[in-house]
Amino acid sequence: MARWEPNAPERLAQAALDLFAERGYENTSVVDIAQRAGLGKTTFFRHFQDKREVLFGRGTMDELVTKAIADAPAAATPLEAVAHALDAAGREVFTPARRAFTARRRAVIAAHPELREREALKNLGLIASVTDALKQRGVPALTARVAAELGALVFAIAYERWSDPANSDDFSELARRALDDVRATTALC
Amino acid sequence: MARWEPNAPERLAQAALDLFAERGYENTSVVDIAQRAGLGKTTFFRHFQDKREVLFGRGTMDELVTKAIADAPAAATPLEAVAHALDAAGREVFTPARRAFTARRRAVIAAHPELREREALKNLGLIASVTDALKQRGVPALTARVAAELGALVFAIAYERWSDPANSDDFSELARRALDDVRATTALC
Repeated sequence: MARWEPNAPERLAQAALDLFAERGYENTSVVDIAQRAGLGKTTFFRHFQDKREVLFGRGTMDELVTKAIADAPAAATPLEAVAHALDAAGREVFTPARRAFTARRRAVIAAHPELREREALKNLGLIASVTDALKQRGVPALTARVAAELGALVFAIAYERWSDPANSDDFSELARRALDDVRATTALC
Repeated sequence: MARWEPNAPERLAQAALDLFAERGYENTSVVDIAQRAGLGKTTFFRHFQDKREVLFGRGTMDELVTKAIADAPAAATPLEAVAHALDAAGREVFTPARRAFTARRRAVIAAHPELREREALKNLGLIASVTDALKQRGVPALTARVAAELGALVFAIAYERWSDPANSDDFSELARRALDDVRATTALC
């Protein structure tokens, strides 16, 4: 297997996805994953607490989103600040080069309830980070929470569309469109 | 321990909460829970797939919410239909008699990531049920999804306030207030 990325977490994630596809999630151990990535078990556990976690190296995602919201123009509304974060995610995480990886990752998660659980919890953590980042901008608590939830929905819609191989638009573009759609829709609820 | 409810799932949940408080979640087995409830292991597994599941006997919640949304007046907006479901939940599930149980359950879940994961996944299932129930009423897909997400947030806020022992308001009343708050807030996002 080609080591498509030089850093350990991505190599481990890629090796895990390959092995899950070849022999199934249940039949793949942490040792198998580390071996396939050309790394040791110790390195695996330095980056991930357990097998499930290998598909969720998203500490960076929380930081990236928090920073982007802090850096949004002072006059930005809460959802505009969230849009700023979605733009940053499109530039730095959901790049065209990662689309195929993401589509495979998404399929594995969808097929395993224990991975869907982990993803659901990670998303709650991300929503909490966005809420906190908005509060840091002086947004009242409830408004921050509502904006963060709407932002999570925008993210989910954009992510679904983007990881569909039939779709070739940029993540940021899809996120902008999803944001407009969701904003227009809240008035109809 | 008093068997506060005649039916097995509730007795098992109550026994589980008692044991988690006495000896910790990790040190409690399915056999322990069944024994404390005066039931057998087989009965446990007839109702719950694993130890975590004992705190999430919520099949009824999905049905109740789906039915209440279907039964909402034809002229109800999507969020009014969701309010109808929250009313039903207040009448049939989150009754004053269950407040103490719920507060304890909430504390145990908050303290254990594996329970928080399960809860997060259950909530996604409930959001999907609400979305489907709204679509059955002819609500367009995206509007249904946004209304279901906002409904989940309203539910979360009402549930937090209701399970706070310092609070004595009815769940339905708290849900109505949370819905008004969230609706007013979406315009500020």
